[in-house]
Amino acid sequence: MEYQELTIEGRNPVLEAFRSGKTIDRLFVLDGCKDGPIQSILREAKKGDTIVSFVDKDRLDSLSETGKHQGVIAKVAAYEYATVEDILKSAEDKGEPPFIIILDHIEDPHNLGAIIRTANLAGCHGVIIPKRRAVGLTATVAKASAGAINYTPVAKVGNIKACIEELKKHGMWFVCADMDGEIMYKLNLTGPIGVVVGNEGEGISKIVKEACDFVAAVPMKGDIDSLNASVAAAVLTYEIVRQRMGI
Amino acid sequence: MEYQELTIEGRNPVLEAFRSGKTIDRLFVLDGCKDGPIQSILREAKKGDTIVSFVDKDRLDSLSETGKHQGVIAKVAAYEYATVEDILKSAEDKGEPPFIIILDHIEDPHNLGAIIRTANLAGCHGVIIPKRRAVGLTATVAKASAGAINYTPVAKVGNIKACIEELKKHGMWFVCADMDGEIMYKLNLTGPIGVVVGNEGEGISKIVKEACDFVAAVPMKGDIDSLNASVAAAVLTYEIVRQRMGI
Repeated sequence: MEYQELTIEGRNPVLEAFRSGKTIDRLFVLDGCKDGPIQSILREAKKGDTIVSFVDKDRLDSLSETGKHQGVIAKVAAYEYATVEDILKSAEDKGEPPFIIILDHIEDPHNLGAIIRTANLAGCHGVIIPKRRAVGLTATVAKASAGAINYTPVAKVGNIKACIEELKKHGMWFVCADMDGEIMYKLNLTGPIGVVVGNEGEGISKIVKEACDFVAAVPMKGDIDSLNASVAAAVLTYEIVRQRMGI
Repeated sequence: MEYQELTIEGRNPVLEAFRSGKTIDRLFVLDGCKDGPIQSILREAKKGDTIVSFVDKDRLDSLSETGKHQGVIAKVAAYEYATVEDILKSAEDKGEPPFIIILDHIEDPHNLGAIIRTANLAGCHGVIIPKRRAVGLTATVAKASAGAINYTPVAKVGNIKACIEELKKHGMWFVCADMDGEIMYKLNLTGPIGVVVGNEGEGISKIVKEACDFVAAVPMKGDIDSLNASVAAAVLTYEIVRQRMGI
């Protein structure tokens, strides 16, 4: 499957896209535009937690491929998101304990792409991202994933904490990376596990951290505060790979 | 020390910058311009292996801050490169066996910045990059390093292989990452060590690989070919951190 990002333009096409259940990553609306059809579209966007940007006419014109946007453009992922069940099934089909990366609001598409790439090579069964306030599967993410997006399922969930609680019922354990945790090499990270990675600037949110079973620290000897988010995710993920290999 | 990238414009200022030994990362010259002063500048650029780009007038105008470029603009690193000796001395001062990252032609400034960031946090004593065909310490690198560029010394050398051979005389060992190597967890990577990371597209060059004592493989279970270069560097570097901690 090849990833494509589609642009849908005009009031009826965009409204149709929402109503048919397509995954809309971003919605661009002409600033100040408040008539009936636009209100209907904004209501649909709100239901789906779509990120909405109000932009000026020049910006809309530059995003438009047809020149007939009527004040509204939607960016649609042609890549279909998986479900959490798909990810669990993938682990089951391979006869392996589930190994999942969960992203608590990664904003940089290069980081998301690099993490999906790492997930693929580390043998993770999937990646879970939140619906809100986070980057989705855009063309930049697809490119940064170096093709991994075509193999590693990515699921979008409404609430990361609820998702973790649900997966715990399936016997999974969760570890997040944070500076005040125990050195990761000393934790037992084998078995069915989810790695939770925080936001680039703010780190992991308190509520998600509390839902985790372990807090793992990547050793840091330096002068600055933190590793790049995709690097931190990879270092912790590969520590789990090592432990899973029994080394 | 804060990093700054300076733009030097005009024939005499640029020639002066070269002759005073400043580290010039890139030189932009008006395409077709071949008079005496420009020839002198190009000769200096060649001596220093500076990357030269011949560009049109619009591009030069857009790079210019003064509007008086006279057909030539140099980008100068206000950040001073360290020497390999500085890096070895830093290890000695800390009473630690040297731990260095050597980059065999990394081209993406985000990768170079992320690697310097990782080097800082992993406790590496410095990063060594080649003079030619590689990205230098540009403003983008400084930003991607999240400030690490102000703490972790970066040295530029003419020949990576010769540098490795010289450092071997100081008792250092070298490990590079490549798919056909032994799984990294099974190698003994303690002691004075250099981690050699290859180019994003082509991986490590044959001649540099042959100069290494070990070839380490990061385990890869997935469908795609390789990890992001800065991720691979971090995963191997942190395996060394683990071994150095005696865990």
